[in-house]
Amino acid sequence: MRWQDIVYLDNSSTTMPCETAIVEMNNAARENWGNPSSLHIMGIAAEEVIDNTKAIAAKLLGCDTEEIFFTSGGTESNNLAIFGAVEALKRRGRRVVTTAVEHSSVKTVFDQLEKQGFEVVRLKPDRYGSISKEQLYDSITADTILVSVMLVNNEIGTVLPVESAAKAIADKNSPALLHCDAVQAFGKIGLNVRKLGADLISISGHKIHAPKGIGVLYKSKKCRIVPRIFGGNQQAGLRSGTEPVPLIAALGGAMREIEIEKSLSKVESLNRFAREKLINTGLVKINSPEDALPYILNVSVEGYRSETMLHFLETKNVFVSSGSACSKGKGSYVLTEIGLPAERVDSALRISFCRDNDFEHVELLCDAIVKASKVLRKR
Amino acid sequence: MRWQDIVYLDNSSTTMPCETAIVEMNNAARENWGNPSSLHIMGIAAEEVIDNTKAIAAKLLGCDTEEIFFTSGGTESNNLAIFGAVEALKRRGRRVVTTAVEHSSVKTVFDQLEKQGFEVVRLKPDRYGSISKEQLYDSITADTILVSVMLVNNEIGTVLPVESAAKAIADKNSPALLHCDAVQAFGKIGLNVRKLGADLISISGHKIHAPKGIGVLYKSKKCRIVPRIFGGNQQAGLRSGTEPVPLIAALGGAMREIEIEKSLSKVESLNRFAREKLINTGLVKINSPEDALPYILNVSVEGYRSETMLHFLETKNVFVSSGSACSKGKGSYVLTEIGLPAERVDSALRISFCRDNDFEHVELLCDAIVKASKVLRKR
Repeated sequence: MRWQDIVYLDNSSTTMPCETAIVEMNNAARENWGNPSSLHIMGIAAEEVIDNTKAIAAKLLGCDTEEIFFTSGGTESNNLAIFGAVEALKRRGRRVVTTAVEHSSVKTVFDQLEKQGFEVVRLKPDRYGSISKEQLYDSITADTILVSVMLVNNEIGTVLPVESAAKAIADKNSPALLHCDAVQAFGKIGLNVRKLGADLISISGHKIHAPKGIGVLYKSKKCRIVPRIFGGNQQAGLRSGTEPVPLIAALGGAMREIEIEKSLSKVESLNRFAREKLINTGLVKINSPEDALPYILNVSVEGYRSETMLHFLETKNVFVSSGSACSKGKGSYVLTEIGLPAERVDSALRISFCRDNDFEHVELLCDAIVKASKVLRKR
Repeated sequence: MRWQDIVYLDNSSTTMPCETAIVEMNNAARENWGNPSSLHIMGIAAEEVIDNTKAIAAKLLGCDTEEIFFTSGGTESNNLAIFGAVEALKRRGRRVVTTAVEHSSVKTVFDQLEKQGFEVVRLKPDRYGSISKEQLYDSITADTILVSVMLVNNEIGTVLPVESAAKAIADKNSPALLHCDAVQAFGKIGLNVRKLGADLISISGHKIHAPKGIGVLYKSKKCRIVPRIFGGNQQAGLRSGTEPVPLIAALGGAMREIEIEKSLSKVESLNRFAREKLINTGLVKINSPEDALPYILNVSVEGYRSETMLHFLETKNVFVSSGSACSKGKGSYVLTEIGLPAERVDSALRISFCRDNDFEHVELLCDAIVKASKVLRKR
């Protein structure tokens, strides 16, 4: 589907790859298809592609290039960070801390750790989806080995106080590593690893206009984690496997297109406009907090099940999601955790913007919701 | 680098993506960029791309589409198969069997299992790099939970008797799952999963003219293994993470271009021609067995270190490797295992063909080796 033919407001599920990313992907696939591990010039040329993207990523994150590792995506980055940290530190303690509003690729890993006998603390969010500094401070102990807190919630856009976790770990003299799932934050808000204080940060390519299949794990050179995929010792042994050069090139292209302030200010206006228009329909309640990252706007159209509404909207070429794409239509645990009643949860829609959206998209969405309310039967 | 400008004889390290693969990748990135997990039509369209490639892969392997799983490549497939099988069966036994000539992404995983306390049996190859039926039969016991045997050795091209392992497992009433690293075999020799008898088969895209970053794990529906990457339960929960649709599309394109008999007969002539020409130089000894898969021809140019020769050859635009690309110049353990003297190991070159090579490439390689012998000092 072409961008101009649709109203795509599901950018937190995935984004359209930008032209720069596609061009870079093609150049690499056609011109730079050597194996980066090859000793000859074709290997060296392929490695240069990797190094270029590392340099761009490192600049955006304010870290060193040797702290950038490529994975197959956000899910693998989260798995590698969490399992890898716990494996490295399991002799120092059995307690791990996270929140109850993490993405499924963090949540499910902690469920696995619990099965393995770790004590998993899942901090309960307030009604805005956030965690307080005090909660973090109180939960982190001297035998806590990992703290994992997302930077921006993927369903409602809440920005979580990751830096407070870093401070608490330091104050408590805890050996814990701090992991941050920054998949919905990277490229959208300024993200400096030193300021954030995280040891491990997960990033996904396809949420920032690169193709699917590529992600980044930032790993501070001060910390050690155990690999999950073993083999030819690519990427300093942390992640074996021939590097996906075309995707890494594409990711570099997508990262070069990032203009945080410019995009944010556009999306802020879109979000403000959308809140106003939606509330004015008289059909919609806003689930995202006021101070959420404006890229995500979670709402409920009460009386209409999310899926029913979503499918009606797509007949009007308007695309949103019912929650996280990864949850595939199951009721949102995030909305339940923040205390919304079942009726609000069942009728939730996630509207998510990108820099390419405009006011017309918001208008068409509102029109479509109004139409739906006239056509669909309330349940 | 463009194919027409170089003599590329390093196709077992990686292959040039074919035009069909690149076109399919682009179509998916431009037209089909929805998240396959999305409930709306864009998700369904993306899922169709996945289903198409599954159908092609299943046809080539003689299996069902629900037995095809996508990974980030051969290394991940091998890791998932081996760790996943052992995790599923560890209560039934602690013994695992493999060969001493596996690719590093199998070898290193078994090293890890050994560290975890498993009894790892590494079958010694004969001087041709093969394992006998008797060795397999004798090694497999009632408490063996996994047998992993590659189909084609990546350094010398030996074809290993994987079917015999399947028979031995059945004869011994062993609970063992049979894994086969078929990365160097798939698309090159006919490979029917029922005939082979393997429960788990690893395949890499970039060895068959797809781009890097995509692989397949065939998993028989009769067996269960434990996932390694957890999250949104994509791919029936076996491999979470948003599927890399453009790469899956590209893989489908590359698979459609496979013509096993036609390519094999061409590569057979190239291999025969190369053996003759190389032996006639009086400089070269052949390390690959006579009945190796002709795609791989391992030779030694005695008196010249592999790396020195490789770098000389690249000045003539001729590209080969010193062993497996993944070993990055370390002495080959495969050649050592088959009993070659250190001098032969240190001077080994792996010449590897694809369907796009021709006789001129072989001639230019031989000319370059002869030139090298006049220019380079023997060590």
